[in-house]
Amino acid sequence: MHNISITQTKNNKQKPKDEALVFGRQFTDHMFLMDYKEGEGWYDARIVPYQPLEMDPAAMIFHYGQTVFEGLKAYRTKDDTIQLFRPEENVKRLNRSNARMCIPEVDEDIALEAIKTLVDLDRDWVPHKEGTSLYIRPFVIATEPYLGVSASKTYTFMIILSPVGAYYDAGIDPVKIAVENDYIRAVKGGTGEAKTAGNYAGSMIAQENVAKKGYAQVLWLDGHEKKYIEEVGSMNVFFKIDGKVITPHLSGSILPGVTRKSVIQLLMDWGIEVQERPILLSEVLTAHANGLLEEAFGSGTAAVISPIGELFYNETSYVINNHQTGALSKRVYDTLTGIQYGTIVDPHDWIVKVNPK
Amino acid sequence: MHNISITQTKNNKQKPKDEALVFGRQFTDHMFLMDYKEGEGWYDARIVPYQPLEMDPAAMIFHYGQTVFEGLKAYRTKDDTIQLFRPEENVKRLNRSNARMCIPEVDEDIALEAIKTLVDLDRDWVPHKEGTSLYIRPFVIATEPYLGVSASKTYTFMIILSPVGAYYDAGIDPVKIAVENDYIRAVKGGTGEAKTAGNYAGSMIAQENVAKKGYAQVLWLDGHEKKYIEEVGSMNVFFKIDGKVITPHLSGSILPGVTRKSVIQLLMDWGIEVQERPILLSEVLTAHANGLLEEAFGSGTAAVISPIGELFYNETSYVINNHQTGALSKRVYDTLTGIQYGTIVDPHDWIVKVNPK
Repeated sequence: MHNISITQTKNNKQKPKDEALVFGRQFTDHMFLMDYKEGEGWYDARIVPYQPLEMDPAAMIFHYGQTVFEGLKAYRTKDDTIQLFRPEENVKRLNRSNARMCIPEVDEDIALEAIKTLVDLDRDWVPHKEGTSLYIRPFVIATEPYLGVSASKTYTFMIILSPVGAYYDAGIDPVKIAVENDYIRAVKGGTGEAKTAGNYAGSMIAQENVAKKGYAQVLWLDGHEKKYIEEVGSMNVFFKIDGKVITPHLSGSILPGVTRKSVIQLLMDWGIEVQERPILLSEVLTAHANGLLEEAFGSGTAAVISPIGELFYNETSYVINNHQTGALSKRVYDTLTGIQYGTIVDPHDWIVKVNPK
Repeated sequence: MHNISITQTKNNKQKPKDEALVFGRQFTDHMFLMDYKEGEGWYDARIVPYQPLEMDPAAMIFHYGQTVFEGLKAYRTKDDTIQLFRPEENVKRLNRSNARMCIPEVDEDIALEAIKTLVDLDRDWVPHKEGTSLYIRPFVIATEPYLGVSASKTYTFMIILSPVGAYYDAGIDPVKIAVENDYIRAVKGGTGEAKTAGNYAGSMIAQENVAKKGYAQVLWLDGHEKKYIEEVGSMNVFFKIDGKVITPHLSGSILPGVTRKSVIQLLMDWGIEVQERPILLSEVLTAHANGLLEEAFGSGTAAVISPIGELFYNETSYVINNHQTGALSKRVYDTLTGIQYGTIVDPHDWIVKVNPK
């Protein structure tokens, strides 16, 4: 048990109705903070009422973007257990991102306990309606007021919580995506495999451009040759071709998704061949031409599984599985969400219960 | 004349002694702010005492890094004129960076007037000692409290000022640099030509690695083939080979430096051939082997000119100009700083005086 001080709010906010929930706009009554100073390490782990931060305008986060974040969810089961899905994976990835961004490592036990303690304190904020959840956002920001380009000597690690609505209102719904030809999300040697702000800031312009043309997401190609498929929007991507499932290997520019890792495990459990390897866009298009591209989907914490119903490239629309959610996509989605909400058995001990009563 | 409200501080800070100045750690009495809201545009241009910002922990700057910045300096001449060097170039680049990062354009006249008004108010902070200056940091941050990955609907544009010491204590001093083989600063299609936080956050690890080996800066290669030279540290780079000067062309991954542009103009004024084109690292090494690599230097606002005395690549050290500052490097440095401090004539109207009395 680590020492996390707790200052409870005296003014509980009004909770939004489950029906009115959106993504990422409302926050709970409390937040977690822990500070770092060079020479002292991390100190003052504390939970306080959700409140504004006081930041020096010269704080390095505003200038050089040294920051990492994570995203995971807490789910309410039918018997009102609150549970997390593989939170230790997020905490490990936080530290891999920290290493890339020259941010000091966070003690993984403390981070995990901080998540559980904060969620437990605000457990009434975990919504009840099917498909809803409490989004958990751990993040680290560089706080030293200094304009030199070098790693900050002070940081704050924070966790905030946001109740979120169901991603799909009426069953999962395939999206149309467009191949991005101009902008690049990441290259090997860059920051693509770290969960850091710059990757997201740099991708917004491509997302805005395809949205204007009616596409939901960008299909990112590699930055070297623009031939290989990397990610879709801010999700990992899978293709079912002739009975096998293929997903880009973790080449150094791709985010190692927790949902991605879980999808691969489930497919293996089911005896379905999964290949993690470079995937040429042309291979996918050839499979489509030959009638072998059976399904395609993105995977991520927000949507869990997002089937791809149409792929746009070079003025051509390639329809996948007649714009329908494929049987395998549906099976993966139902299994993952079933495990998350506690309606089906959890064969890999992925679930961590929050202070079960 | 735009409407900038001014609230003066009641507690002037003690100014540091010119001899004790460092870079980017002390800030003046005031700062400029202007807010943006979707549908309203930019509003409430104001100068207030330098003070902490109140930021929601969910503000998008902390999560998705949507931000741009600029850097320029105010110089004190011998007759106590305070003057800027090509500030309209910085303001134009700010807007080019804004466009790439999906941030709304700032009115360039207002931005320029904000810089001048703020510097004028804090003009006693412009230090007197040779080589010192007042560093000016305009920046824009995304402030909307929202965890969705999309462009923020609110922003703050700010300017802060920091008195800085001379970059060179005892004449300009050549540095040792090392070619970076693993990490990539930027690729075409990424954010390299925008002045945005993520470029700097991603480069810190490479800088830390070479510093441990005794090198001052990283020489960045292109992200596609790792064959072409891009930048040195956070500066543009020039090579004098067999009487001609070569600098990487603005390929889309390189920051379009104001100092770079000014160096090119001076060289042209002097009748020296300048080539802006792709430069193979191998070309530079071959020139070195043939005794034709006469000089190399970085260019940027902080150092103006930073001569390169040694280049490390593949376990080999290539000494340039016997570790001495070359005649051309010195001439460029003396001319640019002479124009900036008003000791030599300014043939291109690069100087903008701040409220001359």
